[in-house]
Amino acid sequence: MSEIIEKTLQQFLDELASKSATPGGGSAAALMGAQAAALTSMVCRLTIGKPQYQAVESQMQQLLERAEQLRAELTGLVKADVDVFNQLMAAYGMPKATELEKTERSAMIQNVLKQATEVPLTCARLCRTAITLSYEAALHGYTGVISDAGVAVLAAYSGLKSAALNVYINTGSIKDTAFTEDKLAELQAILEGAEQLTEQVYQIVKEKL
Amino acid sequence: MSEIIEKTLQQFLDELASKSATPGGGSAAALMGAQAAALTSMVCRLTIGKPQYQAVESQMQQLLERAEQLRAELTGLVKADVDVFNQLMAAYGMPKATELEKTERSAMIQNVLKQATEVPLTCARLCRTAITLSYEAALHGYTGVISDAGVAVLAAYSGLKSAALNVYINTGSIKDTAFTEDKLAELQAILEGAEQLTEQVYQIVKEKL
Repeated sequence: MSEIIEKTLQQFLDELASKSATPGGGSAAALMGAQAAALTSMVCRLTIGKPQYQAVESQMQQLLERAEQLRAELTGLVKADVDVFNQLMAAYGMPKATELEKTERSAMIQNVLKQATEVPLTCARLCRTAITLSYEAALHGYTGVISDAGVAVLAAYSGLKSAALNVYINTGSIKDTAFTEDKLAELQAILEGAEQLTEQVYQIVKEKL
Repeated sequence: MSEIIEKTLQQFLDELASKSATPGGGSAAALMGAQAAALTSMVCRLTIGKPQYQAVESQMQQLLERAEQLRAELTGLVKADVDVFNQLMAAYGMPKATELEKTERSAMIQNVLKQATEVPLTCARLCRTAITLSYEAALHGYTGVISDAGVAVLAAYSGLKSAALNVYINTGSIKDTAFTEDKLAELQAILEGAEQLTEQVYQIVKEKL
């Protein structure tokens, strides 16, 4: 299988719709986040160089660098989600005929579930950053493409909430309650205020149209 | 340029982030809608054939057919948005040296703006349907993949709200107020209740995790 990021949009959608477990919602969440970062970059690039936006030029340049870094990280998570899910399936497929095998299989599942929690948690954190970056783009970006900052914030928020669902699923099967509580608290902190900020960015954009 | 849907995810994201005006938020909106439909299809396919879901099998089969039809339509809009935006740019680029040229250019812009309103309006309508389909998937789908119905509803809602922004931009420049009022009323009807239904689907999914 070639790298998922090298699939065409049509192939990706076909595989998403297929009976195969991967790619699934985790990859879709990361792709939404990556689209959000890409649209923020586009707003920056179409603002930079415009004489009437000279006052915010260096700010837009910095925002562009952060958005492009973020896009690379989120793009990487499209594949990371597939990889960790396949590892999880492999762990569930381990032999369980003897007591030793049962113990080893169970330990492996618990181990991979923790990794499978970190991937969407990272996705949630990056999508939260994508919301913040789209806010800056909506505030200072070129008005002619400001709707793209609006689409960016919506995609980022959807990616965040989707990633949250994937954290909930995986933590639900983890026996290490200290780990689970820690990760759920982290997620809660990431979610805090995200909906309000998203709504705020949407309104800023809508009023500029 | 090859068909946009045949670009790889990496190429699509690179072009979305680039200074080039297309693809932009309209294509991203359609892609989110297509991802939503694809994830609903995946939930259906992983439900169909499971003995414990035999009672909903024919319902899931019908849902799958509707989701796949919807996915094809939304996938088509990824390209339609690029095409109509390019037509709009071409119209704005028409000569305007003489009075006749000005009149012709202005008429062409107004004509293309109407088409450029129909594309996101159609996208909004299809994303609204994608929300409804994800609701059915969340209610009756295999619990083991129910989070994908949750990601589906989030992607569909984000696609809907993104498409709405693109309707607002284009209607803002249209002089035919009867057309504008008509299209905005249609959009309002599409948006009606969408947020509540999305929240409801998200809660159904979250409680099943």
